[in-house]
Amino acid sequence: MGKSDILIVGAGPAGMVAATTAKTYYPDKSITIIKSIKSGCIPCGIPYMFSSLKDPSDNKLKTDALEKKGVKVFIDQVISIDSEEKKVKTKNNKEYSYQKLILAIGSKPIVPPIDGIDKEGVFPIHKDMDYLKKAIAQIKKKKNVLVVGGGFIGVEFADEISNIEGIKVTLIEMRPHLLLNSFDREFSHLVEDKLKKKGVKVITGARAEKIVGSGKVEQVDLSDGRKIDAEGVILGIGACPNTDLAKDAGLDLSSKGGILVDEYMRSSDPNIFAVGDCSCKRDFFTRKAVPVMLASTATAEARVAGANLYKIKVVRENKGTIAVYSTYVDGLVLSSAGLTEENAQKESFEIITGQIEGMDKHPGTLPGAQKSIMKLVFSKQSGIILGGQVSCGMACAQLINLVGVAIQKRMSATELETLQMATHPYLTSSPTKYPVVLAAQEALKKE
Amino acid sequence: MGKSDILIVGAGPAGMVAATTAKTYYPDKSITIIKSIKSGCIPCGIPYMFSSLKDPSDNKLKTDALEKKGVKVFIDQVISIDSEEKKVKTKNNKEYSYQKLILAIGSKPIVPPIDGIDKEGVFPIHKDMDYLKKAIAQIKKKKNVLVVGGGFIGVEFADEISNIEGIKVTLIEMRPHLLLNSFDREFSHLVEDKLKKKGVKVITGARAEKIVGSGKVEQVDLSDGRKIDAEGVILGIGACPNTDLAKDAGLDLSSKGGILVDEYMRSSDPNIFAVGDCSCKRDFFTRKAVPVMLASTATAEARVAGANLYKIKVVRENKGTIAVYSTYVDGLVLSSAGLTEENAQKESFEIITGQIEGMDKHPGTLPGAQKSIMKLVFSKQSGIILGGQVSCGMACAQLINLVGVAIQKRMSATELETLQMATHPYLTSSPTKYPVVLAAQEALKKE
Repeated sequence: MGKSDILIVGAGPAGMVAATTAKTYYPDKSITIIKSIKSGCIPCGIPYMFSSLKDPSDNKLKTDALEKKGVKVFIDQVISIDSEEKKVKTKNNKEYSYQKLILAIGSKPIVPPIDGIDKEGVFPIHKDMDYLKKAIAQIKKKKNVLVVGGGFIGVEFADEISNIEGIKVTLIEMRPHLLLNSFDREFSHLVEDKLKKKGVKVITGARAEKIVGSGKVEQVDLSDGRKIDAEGVILGIGACPNTDLAKDAGLDLSSKGGILVDEYMRSSDPNIFAVGDCSCKRDFFTRKAVPVMLASTATAEARVAGANLYKIKVVRENKGTIAVYSTYVDGLVLSSAGLTEENAQKESFEIITGQIEGMDKHPGTLPGAQKSIMKLVFSKQSGIILGGQVSCGMACAQLINLVGVAIQKRMSATELETLQMATHPYLTSSPTKYPVVLAAQEALKKE
Repeated sequence: MGKSDILIVGAGPAGMVAATTAKTYYPDKSITIIKSIKSGCIPCGIPYMFSSLKDPSDNKLKTDALEKKGVKVFIDQVISIDSEEKKVKTKNNKEYSYQKLILAIGSKPIVPPIDGIDKEGVFPIHKDMDYLKKAIAQIKKKKNVLVVGGGFIGVEFADEISNIEGIKVTLIEMRPHLLLNSFDREFSHLVEDKLKKKGVKVITGARAEKIVGSGKVEQVDLSDGRKIDAEGVILGIGACPNTDLAKDAGLDLSSKGGILVDEYMRSSDPNIFAVGDCSCKRDFFTRKAVPVMLASTATAEARVAGANLYKIKVVRENKGTIAVYSTYVDGLVLSSAGLTEENAQKESFEIITGQIEGMDKHPGTLPGAQKSIMKLVFSKQSGIILGGQVSCGMACAQLINLVGVAIQKRMSATELETLQMATHPYLTSSPTKYPVVLAAQEALKKE
């Protein structure tokens, strides 16, 4: 029987960061990772394997650095957990004992029960290098590709595949606009326009109802009656947590899916932790269970778990998950943190918003300057920031991370209005028009 | 006699933002600006008038938008303040009365008392479009240009002028490295190497002692005995606050220069405010007077003053000035916020630091990916962040602004280690290697 002090199941970003963090905080403990996929991928890099990266293999998620640090890595699949005896069993009929077990077993792509969904040419997104290489090679041979789902994943796939010569891309989304989980309509429009300009056919307010073809997919019938030619279909409609292993072991699960965990990522068994997509997240604002599945969230959770396996060393400051996202569509960057105006209203927050437009360099005539739009959402009475959306050039993601920090520190519009920040001609808007400051001021005007 | 409720002297970023903010908070008050320079410049854009901007005039600081909002703008020079009668006198022999007066009278470039400093071809940096256009036209005709001063301004001038064909640029700095006010040596080296690669001759540990030439500058003699050929000399060694007007009016001044102000930018006369370079700043960490002269700082102060002229409406949250800077040298970006390791030690802080290297996109093979280096400085006992330095691609300035927020909110290494942030292949390092998080973790390891 394999014996390890700390046993981690899964080697995605959550599993890997759990291992490095555990190694940092508990250098004397032995650590083992069991992963079921021989060669994994950097999850958020998957769309870029189609055209931006020279070789899809460049997007490999490597465990070499972990192994050099003394972490043992085995390719195998854990099939059961004996939480009494503190050991697991694997598909290859091996057993591993543990003191602390970390489940970082991720999620699986949602495959909707559509007629014809199992036809050749329909690809859900599995994070497996060998599978993806084959899928990409096949997609590259098609003339018409349909991407199902207008969230981040779908939008990024549509953009990347449309870079490949000879492929006509259609993107469908059942809601009235793209990216509505994280953006208000004024931002959705930007990405819709960008994709359309690139020649992507964007269809909203419709869903795929039937996949037609003899063996292979040839056409997809939509709910609005349209029929779309497609020899390749990519499913980008989200994922659901992998919880079978946890369920069999008797761990508490959320009714919304996901392994229930406490503040320190401990499951209902105090020696079993769950991190990343497989664990249930609570919303920062409402404490509701929310289906946020981001590598960045997963790694933050993994750091909390890894540091606190034996003793709570790192007291957690942020008691809930904020979705902080960025997406990139052919030079257009959109980023979002926290609640949108629409989502805040759905949750019954009384809000004020501030919105500001400008340029992301100053003067705006400098080479490479792009338009910048920022919208901030505040609680009307308490003045606390609830969310922000921004579109500008490449600095967008760090700008939204600043907004993310402001949300995590529950900053007020007043604090943001008097914020001290750096500006530079090539790198930011002018000091007289720094978007966070001006959007906060716009909101305060309305009070 | 001109009559205005709110009278602002100076139309740099501080004066302009004071006016727009006052207009926002006191829409019924009349506002007048008196500015002494007919056509001003965006201060931080001045270096880019040499080569990055097609036309130097693109860097003009325009007051049109203010005038459209009903702010009166006069070109004239205020020569005295009668604080009893609440009025000012100008060079054109006019008088203007006020209820509230805002001094945004800026700073003047330091011209060191060097033998020959008044020779033709020696240019201090005045923020005056007509003056700068002439200076730029003359510099462009030279073969050898010496830039004196290796802070931000000097570095950016050296970089920009070296883009002009046929000009050989030398940069001298009296301290042992460039940018030492805001960066530790490991970062200074980066910019030194970059400039040297571009063909700029970088001389440190020496000062200009004598400017030689018959009428026009021909050569500069350095303290280390070297003699540098130069038909053009740019002085980039800093500035000192304009305080003559305030002194004559009997306002309290700091012994370090600068008009003394309270939390709300009120001078010793409650109806006179001072904002921007002319006002004295207190350090965020020590409350010492510090010579931070940044447009971004100036605008933050102007917002505080503008909102609080008649009543304190916006309670200030950040009680002291943090220098948050970014600089750009031919694609290399360096940013700094708060205390460097060296400066923290000089101020007797007991510290720990964390430093991390990586790539600013992921995978690092994506087009445009650049090396990223981040260093964070924490108080050892209290764990509070004191400063940060970072070098990476164009998102650097927003990343340092995030660090600036962390400093302003006195965040701990633990909070930063468990930070929630967005990552994206094209826009940030990977979620497993987000620099703020990992640098915090590196520091915590040392505790």
